[in-house]
Amino acid sequence: MTVEAFDAVDVIAAKRDGRALSKEQIDWVIDAYTRGVVAEEQMAALAMAIFINDMEASEIADWTQAMIASGERMDFSSLSRPTSDKHSTGGVGDKITLPLAPLVAVFDVAVPQLSGRGLGHTGGTLDKLESIPGWRAGLSNAEILGQLEDIGAVICAAGSGLAPADKKLYALRDITSTVDCIPLIASSIMSKKIAEGTSGLVLDVKVGSGAFMKDLDKAGQLARTMVDLGKSAGVKTSALLTDMSTPLGLTVGNALEVRESVEVLAGGGPADVVDLTVALAEEMLRLAGRTDVDVRAALSDGRAMDKWNQMIRAQNGDPAAALAVAEHTEVVTASETGLLTKMDALSIGVASWRLGAGRARKEDPVQDVAGIELHAKPGEHVTAGQPLMTLHTATPERFARAVESLETAVEIGGDAASVPESIVFDKIT
Amino acid sequence: MTVEAFDAVDVIAAKRDGRALSKEQIDWVIDAYTRGVVAEEQMAALAMAIFINDMEASEIADWTQAMIASGERMDFSSLSRPTSDKHSTGGVGDKITLPLAPLVAVFDVAVPQLSGRGLGHTGGTLDKLESIPGWRAGLSNAEILGQLEDIGAVICAAGSGLAPADKKLYALRDITSTVDCIPLIASSIMSKKIAEGTSGLVLDVKVGSGAFMKDLDKAGQLARTMVDLGKSAGVKTSALLTDMSTPLGLTVGNALEVRESVEVLAGGGPADVVDLTVALAEEMLRLAGRTDVDVRAALSDGRAMDKWNQMIRAQNGDPAAALAVAEHTEVVTASETGLLTKMDALSIGVASWRLGAGRARKEDPVQDVAGIELHAKPGEHVTAGQPLMTLHTATPERFARAVESLETAVEIGGDAASVPESIVFDKIT
Repeated sequence: MTVEAFDAVDVIAAKRDGRALSKEQIDWVIDAYTRGVVAEEQMAALAMAIFINDMEASEIADWTQAMIASGERMDFSSLSRPTSDKHSTGGVGDKITLPLAPLVAVFDVAVPQLSGRGLGHTGGTLDKLESIPGWRAGLSNAEILGQLEDIGAVICAAGSGLAPADKKLYALRDITSTVDCIPLIASSIMSKKIAEGTSGLVLDVKVGSGAFMKDLDKAGQLARTMVDLGKSAGVKTSALLTDMSTPLGLTVGNALEVRESVEVLAGGGPADVVDLTVALAEEMLRLAGRTDVDVRAALSDGRAMDKWNQMIRAQNGDPAAALAVAEHTEVVTASETGLLTKMDALSIGVASWRLGAGRARKEDPVQDVAGIELHAKPGEHVTAGQPLMTLHTATPERFARAVESLETAVEIGGDAASVPESIVFDKIT
Repeated sequence: MTVEAFDAVDVIAAKRDGRALSKEQIDWVIDAYTRGVVAEEQMAALAMAIFINDMEASEIADWTQAMIASGERMDFSSLSRPTSDKHSTGGVGDKITLPLAPLVAVFDVAVPQLSGRGLGHTGGTLDKLESIPGWRAGLSNAEILGQLEDIGAVICAAGSGLAPADKKLYALRDITSTVDCIPLIASSIMSKKIAEGTSGLVLDVKVGSGAFMKDLDKAGQLARTMVDLGKSAGVKTSALLTDMSTPLGLTVGNALEVRESVEVLAGGGPADVVDLTVALAEEMLRLAGRTDVDVRAALSDGRAMDKWNQMIRAQNGDPAAALAVAEHTEVVTASETGLLTKMDALSIGVASWRLGAGRARKEDPVQDVAGIELHAKPGEHVTAGQPLMTLHTATPERFARAVESLETAVEIGGDAASVPESIVFDKIT
């Protein structure tokens, strides 16, 4: 029988009463939770106490380190090039990882993108890539290292060995209304990214209706908390605060977003997707010491596309294969004429999810073909009757619920000033 | 598949954000928790949110009613006499139920005392009575009614059918540091007592080191909350706020407390036990409409003892049988001469528990013989070397840990003003 260093009841009571937890208490509670000695209901009570009473910076750092210590750490120091990674807090139409990883790899910086699947209204990078015939998400650690050495970019499933405490805690927070809490979000993201072993990390912190963080203040606070956590763990870290009031690009959904990503890699694509891809690539390269490079050129001259093709083929995907197309579509038109000032990210994300692009439970399947194409974006002038969106699905009985969530998604004739001028609001280094 | 009226995540989030829950939300969450649809970890998060963000009076009333509705209700309306019950929030040496129930029954008021077992440093009424050879705690509802009609007093185990939601929630609160919270304490106590079906109820709310409530303000708040809950459910309810800085009487433990209770029923016993028994009896009788009675006389003239003997025999106990006596005792003496100003209830309760009188887990056995006899009480003058306590146990290896908890239990030469003049501080009607 192990003699436990603390009693969960005392640790919970300390945070309940607004006291800071010691490093020893935090190390113990995360370890004991991983071992099952601290029960789910005890961690739920502690998470709620943290949510309401907050944590100091030193507690968040200790909590993050304890979660890292709950599992294995990867090590990319044997690679011949530096590593730089990106993490997005999640948004609607956020396919940036797809063009970004090969684009950065062009400049001899390795990108180890260990990704997840989508849950709720934001899509998952792996779900998108799995719409490419043959592509597989699961790689061994040796395969990841090999692909990083050979090609310089890998997007694959994060192994279950990284920060297992976070995995347990994330599932718990999801059902106990303790998700939207900066100390727990920051430590969750950063424990996985630090354990992953990247030497540079750029955080894309989304702000707006489609994001975790609805306002710039809270997003800035989250970004600063994460940048500090990264730096204190020896990872070069910076953050961009970017707009998520409107979906990124003109597509939301799995195969639809792959198609748009390939357009970007071919030198085209919507301006916001290209701008954000370039901004993040430049920042990732800067952290890796590559400051004097022309990133946009690698999109227009085919070098990024070559990397993409290699990366997809290395994981058994066929980049030339035709992507699936939805059998059923429905068009949503403009109800009036005027300036389009809103295409709400959350409503459109939920609609796409209801069309079948996302899942409600982690064991649900997703449709490759489901999603939404946008035909106009805020800032454009539209005419009554003009198509604004096309909804795609394999299961047409889903249209009604999707359209419901779009009821207040569009605003025509609002204030032009409400349309952001740039997708990047701020940078925190 | 049942369509659920609410989602637990939304109900938790509302209380997390400091909003009041509606009656519909509360009814649903308690019912769904009883059915297992709301998971333990979700209720833990909700309990912590309630602990930190509190509840309004109407929420506490709804919560209490929802817990009552989770199980069966007893009905004593068929009895030929009124019912009046007492509930103590728990203290050290609190054997008052034992003389009180037969004493009140003398005056033709029925006392349905559905009791529990002890956990932690406060003893349980059933544990005490089980030190009487042959006595059994478990009665059917028909047996309870029959004994109330024939004798007028019954002390027995509360059936598991009363407020099952409370039973689940109580076990959960115990491990999640959400015990010491007025809305949850008040609703827990009152749901069981209202479901039990008594028409009158006197609450003995303890104040001091050995009690849940360490100060008079919080105890008063708890008492008022419970009195309001009782009244709004149609139960005549009042509360006494009573001292629990010092153990009640001169004994702590199971058989030891039965012996002292019998002394009280024989017209003797320590003044504080007699005073509190009489005060509670008078209040219970007042609620039942019996105001013009001489309660003390029934202790000195043997009527209360007769009822006791009938009550014990009705449950197979032998009131004349000798109670077990500990094989091992150890005396604690006064370290100096002076006015005794403190015999700390909590320390002595913990010591008695460690000697074997209480249990750490609900499946642990208790010793009939274990406990502590006090030879002096605060307010008395003591001489260095004079015996202050005798510790009793069947397992002498327990002495060391018990003595440890007594280290700061006794204070000699302190301020005489710190000794309360009366055991009853206040009455709330």
